[in-house]
Amino acid sequence: MNFHTEYLTLETAERYEIRDITDEVARIVAIAGFREGMVLVSAMHITASIFVNDHEPGLYSDIMTWLEALAPAKPDYLHHRTGEDNADAHLKRMLLGHQVLLPITKGILDLGPWERVHYGEFDGQRRKRIVVKVMGE
Amino acid sequence: MNFHTEYLTLETAERYEIRDITDEVARIVAIAGFREGMVLVSAMHITASIFVNDHEPGLYSDIMTWLEALAPAKPDYLHHRTGEDNADAHLKRMLLGHQVLLPITKGILDLGPWERVHYGEFDGQRRKRIVVKVMGE
Amino acid sequence: MNFHTEYLTLETAERYEIRDITDEVARIVAIAGFREGMVLVSAMHITASIFVNDHEPGLYSDIMTWLEALAPAKPDYLHHRTGEDNADAHLKRMLLGHQVLLPITKGILDLGPWERVHYGEFDGQRRKRIVVKVMGE
Repeated sequence: MNFHTEYLTLETAERYEIRDITDEVARIVAIAGFREGMVLVSAMHITASIFVNDHEPGLYSDIMTWLEALAPAKPDYLHHRTGEDNADAHLKRMLLGHQVLLPITKGILDLGPWERVHYGEFDGQRRKRIVVKVMGE
Repeated sequence: MNFHTEYLTLETAERYEIRDITDEVARIVAIAGFREGMVLVSAMHITASIFVNDHEPGLYSDIMTWLEALAPAKPDYLHHRTGEDNADAHLKRMLLGHQVLLPITKGILDLGPWERVHYGEFDGQRRKRIVVKVMGE
Repeated sequence: MNFHTEYLTLETAERYEIRDITDEVARIVAIAGFREGMVLVSAMHITASIFVNDHEPGLYSDIMTWLEALAPAKPDYLHHRTGEDNADAHLKRMLLGHQVLLPITKGILDLGPWERVHYGEFDGQRRKRIVVKVMGE
């Protein structure tokens, strides 16, 4: 078993943003060069998500509207007594999850036809990191 | 480290349905024959979930009622401008998650007494695939 | 590839409680002694969560308030016809997820600066188990 680890760094233009990172993950999987394996993609910040869903901008908007309904940005979270203003981001990130593990079969990401890996940012406009760790043979 | 990969195909009778797939996963784990390892069970479609919870039909109904309250089927999603009518399924699948990683210890699934692996379908009545990838020694 | 498996047992004082278990996971990772690998931390009970978020008591309260709003404790779940009274716990555990997979790089947990692993209990005051399975080289 071998491992190959990289870190993606990104800074979104908006506070709330969804970005398709499938191609970057596939690039790292290709560099690792394993025929069989798995790749972990995990947000290293606690106000961001990694999730698999359709690459469709209308759906991105639906997801953001829905997250805001279920976990609204508002002043009266206890977490804000620390001086933070992003409690909603901590909750939104839980709803979508913070990591995925993708199978690698015959050398490539073994995804269904519409499966795309996304980064969900809920407290952006600053540098964030994602760990991409590939294991395999 | 060795890998063994299979794909489950299923087509639910209902549009919304929960199905216990633990026995099928255990069968694949037995075929792989690893003493120590892990098995990834992941929905390959973006309108379905894989999750671990109790095998109890009353709870299945509670989960479906609850998902419909939090992510209702309704016409006015932006995703529907593409011609689709299943935006609720994309959201429901996020709430339950789309994959699990199960430990294999001493040759069998290392689950708690009530842990059962389920497939959650939210846009069914057509063929869907699940990837089951076992790794171990 | 080698594996090292341990089980954490805990019993919370409260029915609903969040506990930081990062140090216990790090201790097990150190015992395993792998330079590169991953560690699965997974609740073995279906009314508990494992999740990564900030270690901040105000946020813990926010999370519990939020879970209660989205998946309230109430009598009229169908699951309660079995004699159980904890259907809300089954739902709350889905919202936060029941497992995480943490990367191990250069011998230690490869986490972002605020990433901490938490156990979320929603039906406590009795003994529960968590499986911690480390794999690596």
